[in-house]
Amino acid sequence: MAAVHTVTVVHTIAELRARIKTFRRSSEQTVGFVPTMGYLHEGHASLLKKACAQSGLVVLSIFVNPLQFGPNEDFERYPRNPERDLAVAEAAGADLVFMPSVEEMYPQPIRTTVSVSGVTERLCGASRPGHFDGVATVVSKLLHIVQPDQAFFGMKDAQQVAVIEQMVQDLNLDVEIVRCPTLREEDGLAMSSRNVYLTQDEREQALVLSQALNKAEAYIAKQAVISSKALVDLVSSHIRTAPLADIDYVEALTYPTLQPFETSPLSDTIVIAVAVKFGKTRLIDNLITQVRK
Amino acid sequence: MAAVHTVTVVHTIAELRARIKTFRRSSEQTVGFVPTMGYLHEGHASLLKKACAQSGLVVLSIFVNPLQFGPNEDFERYPRNPERDLAVAEAAGADLVFMPSVEEMYPQPIRTTVSVSGVTERLCGASRPGHFDGVATVVSKLLHIVQPDQAFFGMKDAQQVAVIEQMVQDLNLDVEIVRCPTLREEDGLAMSSRNVYLTQDEREQALVLSQALNKAEAYIAKQAVISSKALVDLVSSHIRTAPLADIDYVEALTYPTLQPFETSPLSDTIVIAVAVKFGKTRLIDNLITQVRK
Repeated sequence: MAAVHTVTVVHTIAELRARIKTFRRSSEQTVGFVPTMGYLHEGHASLLKKACAQSGLVVLSIFVNPLQFGPNEDFERYPRNPERDLAVAEAAGADLVFMPSVEEMYPQPIRTTVSVSGVTERLCGASRPGHFDGVATVVSKLLHIVQPDQAFFGMKDAQQVAVIEQMVQDLNLDVEIVRCPTLREEDGLAMSSRNVYLTQDEREQALVLSQALNKAEAYIAKQAVISSKALVDLVSSHIRTAPLADIDYVEALTYPTLQPFETSPLSDTIVIAVAVKFGKTRLIDNLITQVRK
Repeated sequence: MAAVHTVTVVHTIAELRARIKTFRRSSEQTVGFVPTMGYLHEGHASLLKKACAQSGLVVLSIFVNPLQFGPNEDFERYPRNPERDLAVAEAAGADLVFMPSVEEMYPQPIRTTVSVSGVTERLCGASRPGHFDGVATVVSKLLHIVQPDQAFFGMKDAQQVAVIEQMVQDLNLDVEIVRCPTLREEDGLAMSSRNVYLTQDEREQALVLSQALNKAEAYIAKQAVISSKALVDLVSSHIRTAPLADIDYVEALTYPTLQPFETSPLSDTIVIAVAVKFGKTRLIDNLITQVRK
């Protein structure tokens, strides 16, 4: 039987800092941080559980960051459910939940941008202009506010992890970025807050994403030489078997450098990343795998 | 009689962090930070003395940051004298002097840029494209490395202070920026590492900068309504009395927002900022003054 655990909700930066400072003074244990946009699912819960296993204090942030949404994207309708989020956070063992208002995070128009080049040229960096500036800037703010020892990110957003790792390295941020595996529904669909948007037909057809990535994995296991084009063709053609699937991109790149290759990637690790629209809902998924064992 | 004080020189980020962490564990006192490009003069020494008066540990960094120099600027020939710098640092009471190599600060090509808009549109932001991106990025790195309670900056670089204050506010950096007054030679020339470039004739004529700003101050004291154009004309025409002076800019703006005004600035405080070339040497100076008492 788990011990009774109570989560504390904090809305202001000043109170959050004061509470973390109090913890730091009283403990040699580390602070773990899980930044999210809320509408928590089991994927988020798995990040929190990992953070709890390694940290003396676990901070969860819930903030739908307007800066990382394009003008025609889903900022306004992004799903929100703070009450259920708190229950999930509490069950997963979070100690502090930071839920700032947009005004608390952006009291004045922000004039400072943190921008990462290179790893942002392709995939969502190409199809969502400005998105990763918004991500890098808000993650930089949150890391300055929380000052954690470790921050936990899910690998469903593999490019986001690459962007944040690059930023942390380039700017000497004093934090360890912990990569956490994508969680999936039983039938293989990658967990995402946006899955709630899907109609029943779209939800069924969305299975082609994980199926296509599984095919790619089986293909790679059999091949001595990895061809980027063959991988992309294999994945794309399987996704196209779903009539409702509208492909945004399918790419095979080195990871985490996110550079293209033809047949022999310079990196040991590659990512096959997909973004596909079903109606108004854009889903992403990826497979990261070793090509040299 | 001053107590014997020894300065410790550190070349790596890892050693600097370890030493600061050791201090933090053993003391409740604050850490003060003075970032510089070296070739220290009395202005730098005054920052160090102010830091010593307020902090338990004073960290000085000496790093000529290539990122903030344009392709035709003086990065290569920027004056350097590490031995004398250490003597100045020690005399002024610095505890740790961080002197990283370019490779230590930029082990790989940096892909992350911290960029501040608004306050960088005019003055040196206009005449040195990319300069303040380089400044904001390296100061962000240094603040992450040192994690000081307070960082001390000289007001000779008034726009730099405005950029850093904006960055600290926008990105929630957990540091207080302390503005320190410009130090001047006895005849009024603002102290600068670049003064060493001046020939004897240039050095004599460079006095027009501080003289022109003094005239502006006297003018402001007498006027009920402050006209930006009148100030700029007054300062420019005095500078032009020096045959070797080649004006880059003379501007009167609100401070620290650095926005133009005509006769009634919205801000209580204005800056009159000048950049003037004497031969190959570009000097800057400024006057910051209250216009509403």
